[in-house]
Amino acid sequence: MTYTAINFKEKLTKFHEHWSPKVIAEMNDYQFKLVKIEGEFVWHHHEGTDEVFLVLEGEMSIEFHDGEVHLSSGEMFVIPKGVPHKPNAKKECHVLLVEPRGVSNTGNTEGELTAENNVWI
Amino acid sequence: MTYTAINFKEKLTKFHEHWSPKVIAEMNDYQFKLVKIEGEFVWHHHEGTDEVFLVLEGEMSIEFHDGEVHLSSGEMFVIPKGVPHKPNAKKECHVLLVEPRGVSNTGNTEGELTAENNVWI
Repeated sequence: MTYTAINFKEKLTKFHEHWSPKVIAEMNDYQFKLVKIEGEFVWHHHEGTDEVFLVLEGEMSIEFHDGEVHLSSGEMFVIPKGVPHKPNAKKECHVLLVEPRGVSNTGNTEGELTAENNVWI
Repeated sequence: MTYTAINFKEKLTKFHEHWSPKVIAEMNDYQFKLVKIEGEFVWHHHEGTDEVFLVLEGEMSIEFHDGEVHLSSGEMFVIPKGVPHKPNAKKECHVLLVEPRGVSNTGNTEGELTAENNVWI
């Protein structure tokens, strides 16, 4: 039989809202999630885990208390666990997140930007 | 301070050999590795873990005992743990692998294509 690859562009047509990660794959107890971002997110951290941002299209920045990192398409960054960060994007940016199953998008905080967890597309 | 993103294209200039994964990042106890592949690999499986193939440039296939999957740039696939597979690429293809630290490229087999593990670039 022919198995089907997971195609990022095709998956990205399936949702439009910002800051609401959608799960596209699991590897062991880790999830790969697509998210569309635009504007400013909230300061937060993830108590127990690192988090990977991998930019598929567009540009974004991640602010830290002591600096920032700028990410373009074809670039990734690992946020160390416990480190407060605030993502932002001037224009819509498409990102692949990698993190353990169950991680909330707003980490230690909860507010209007907290997305439903474990939504598959 | 300004932190530096990990740029795939820049990292890919740092090595040329095929079938020899290079580590570019760690997230918890998982590693992100770049590999350039061309031709046929060997049949193998990974006893204790799933494995992610994410194609950055080019095209590849992964053969299974009961079928195959074809992957192009912007596509990924999760090989379930224990499943025998044989990657191949007609022309050079650039792939991002995600798997736990310590996983050997030839899994349960060892041979001339077994690469040195944990080589960072």
